[in-house]
Amino acid sequence: MKFWKYHGLGNDFVLFEDFKSEIPADPEFVRYICDRHFGIGGDGILYIRKDVEADAYMKIMNSDGSEAEMCGNGIRCFAKHLYDFGIVKSEKMRINTLGGIKYIDVKAENGIVKEVSVNMGAPYLEVKDIPMNGNGRFINKKITAAGMEITGTAVGMGNPHFVTFQDLNDENILKLGPVLEKHEMFPRKTNVEFVTAKEDYLDVKVYERGAAWTNACGTGACATAVAATLVGICPTGKDIAIHLPGGTLSINVKNDYSSVQMTGPAEMVFEGEINW
Amino acid sequence: MKFWKYHGLGNDFVLFEDFKSEIPADPEFVRYICDRHFGIGGDGILYIRKDVEADAYMKIMNSDGSEAEMCGNGIRCFAKHLYDFGIVKSEKMRINTLGGIKYIDVKAENGIVKEVSVNMGAPYLEVKDIPMNGNGRFINKKITAAGMEITGTAVGMGNPHFVTFQDLNDENILKLGPVLEKHEMFPRKTNVEFVTAKEDYLDVKVYERGAAWTNACGTGACATAVAATLVGICPTGKDIAIHLPGGTLSINVKNDYSSVQMTGPAEMVFEGEINW
Repeated sequence: MKFWKYHGLGNDFVLFEDFKSEIPADPEFVRYICDRHFGIGGDGILYIRKDVEADAYMKIMNSDGSEAEMCGNGIRCFAKHLYDFGIVKSEKMRINTLGGIKYIDVKAENGIVKEVSVNMGAPYLEVKDIPMNGNGRFINKKITAAGMEITGTAVGMGNPHFVTFQDLNDENILKLGPVLEKHEMFPRKTNVEFVTAKEDYLDVKVYERGAAWTNACGTGACATAVAATLVGICPTGKDIAIHLPGGTLSINVKNDYSSVQMTGPAEMVFEGEINW
Repeated sequence: MKFWKYHGLGNDFVLFEDFKSEIPADPEFVRYICDRHFGIGGDGILYIRKDVEADAYMKIMNSDGSEAEMCGNGIRCFAKHLYDFGIVKSEKMRINTLGGIKYIDVKAENGIVKEVSVNMGAPYLEVKDIPMNGNGRFINKKITAAGMEITGTAVGMGNPHFVTFQDLNDENILKLGPVLEKHEMFPRKTNVEFVTAKEDYLDVKVYERGAAWTNACGTGACATAVAATLVGICPTGKDIAIHLPGGTLSINVKNDYSSVQMTGPAEMVFEGEINW
């Protein structure tokens, strides 16, 4: 069985061309494939399946065997494969997911995709939609965690995010990540972004809900950019560079907050053949 | 560049056929290849090189970019590849390593190797050779660590091991691993084996020097078997089953302690092609 190994900012995936929807996707198979010692190794599996409404359907399974709705890093890898292997010939494509149809622009050089731009949809700003307890919006407000008062902004990108621009040392950041993730204000827990504003970029450490510290989080980068516009650090309608441990994403928040555009790299590392 | 991915009890390796000794082995390349998110992923790289004295030379690089002398799990994978791909046609082979020539027996079924047996050489029993401070041998003697008195046996298998059969709960084992590793009695630190003797096997948790808790440690399994014969739990000259988190190894300690034979599985997981 042929496969390809991709990563987007170090968030890595095994990709199968599964046009007949016949490659296994049960938890046991997924966990074996994603096992980094006994299998191929990856944060998840991307299955290219046919779709009647869009250019392709992206089924995405997490390494723990659960199914994901969407993944910003994953869909960039997925779109690159569609284009580089001639499965979709247009630089504009529509990819269907459990989280709905996503609109993609790939930027190719000599027929090879270097960057992929994804319309990540509109951010949720009302706390009830994030979801977070309370009313209205939560912008530059205080929350108490680990005995500290933390000023932050809550943003929903399909999943909840709490973004803080507060000056915190590494020790406090390490302590606050898991405490804020489970803060009582967030009924479904939250992702947490610790941001340092630099001259022309935002440096971000993401504590991902259920996954702890990660190399890169696409929705976290989007939420950070949205929060930066809400608190007045960055403008809407312009590209905002978000530095994550795994690399850089460029985020553009539409002036009317009707959508967030995420642009970033995707790389094919190797191709392989596994018996199953 | 073609490669194969193998594992022996979950200790996993990227293997290159490097007959012309031209594939890079510098730390930067090795760390990239072994990186589990940005590269292929592995605990190390095995290079098949030509040798004038033996059937092949096994160069082995650790994922941190350092070179290893020998690796029990790695050499089983290496020997399986030599036989399965017809590079060596005999079931008995000699593989040269930085740690000297190793004598191997592969056991094939329908032309495919299922098990590999490696002569791991003679154990060191005198503390000065292990190395450990003091004189004579250290068999069933007490050492103080983390405020506890631990009875154990010291064995050298090219690297130092401290093996204890003491009844310890998981909490104490977790605490003692890193403390014993750096115990002042071991000038070059030590691997630590926590053993529970079951009816027909020994259950072992290994804290590897410099690598913490691992799925499987070939020399740790050998040292455990040697210690078990020294303290009278198991006989010499018979196969001793050693259960490790990653699987089972069979160890046979020669009656005169002139050598230790290790037998275990090796598996090819997938083959791939990477551009470099």
